[in-house]
Amino acid sequence: MSAIPPFTVYDKACPSRLVLEHVTSRWGVLALAALRERTYRFSELRRRIEGVSEKMLAQTLQTLERDGFVLRVAHPEIPPRVEYSLTGPGREAAELVVDLVQWVEQQMPQVIESQRQRDALRAEAS
Amino acid sequence: MSAIPPFTVYDKACPSRLVLEHVTSRWGVLALAALRERTYRFSELRRRIEGVSEKMLAQTLQTLERDGFVLRVAHPEIPPRVEYSLTGPGREAAELVVDLVQWVEQQMPQVIESQRQRDALRAEAS
Repeated sequence: MSAIPPFTVYDKACPSRLVLEHVTSRWGVLALAALRERTYRFSELRRRIEGVSEKMLAQTLQTLERDGFVLRVAHPEIPPRVEYSLTGPGREAAELVVDLVQWVEQQMPQVIESQRQRDALRAEAS
Repeated sequence: MSAIPPFTVYDKACPSRLVLEHVTSRWGVLALAALRERTYRFSELRRRIEGVSEKMLAQTLQTLERDGFVLRVAHPEIPPRVEYSLTGPGREAAELVVDLVQWVEQQMPQVIESQRQRDALRAEAS
């Protein structure tokens, strides 16, 4: 049995840092969170994730597919239908991401109050 | 009582999307995860998070401080000693971030295998 090398995101050369960036990237987070709701076609997913360009969404899905988190199924129909869903590991990642998303959404009133106080202090000091 | 507006990261104009980006940014994730270990001085934290520039770390900490997640304490000593730690909400965010970091690190053997298979298929197809 060969030993599994230790992976650590603190090491700048460790591939785990890149994979962490894939799942925490601006659009990676939102794609994983949306796909946890259900299977999406590309255009539906793009509407769900407001503001993402076609190019960025395609790139994000391709990266997550290569990492083994997203499944792309092209149904042999006319017109072709392409659907995106989560793999088992993708679902695990998405659940952790959604925990963070929901926490941020719930935390917003306190965050906005903190920002307000901090900006007021700054304005006073200048 | 005034109603709390609903926050959703899927809305491109919602401030929660920005805050989510603060805690999931390349250096935001690593700063939160590192500060969950202990209080750090700036230079120590910069060594812990390999590869981060002084400017990017300063900007990241300032953003997280404004959101109410990081506490910056400047001890009135000569030479001045500045320490960074997590607030209560910062600790909550850091715990969710660390869950994701640890999951990614553990998942790496499978991710690397998925990438290898995908790249082999691509090479074959081209």
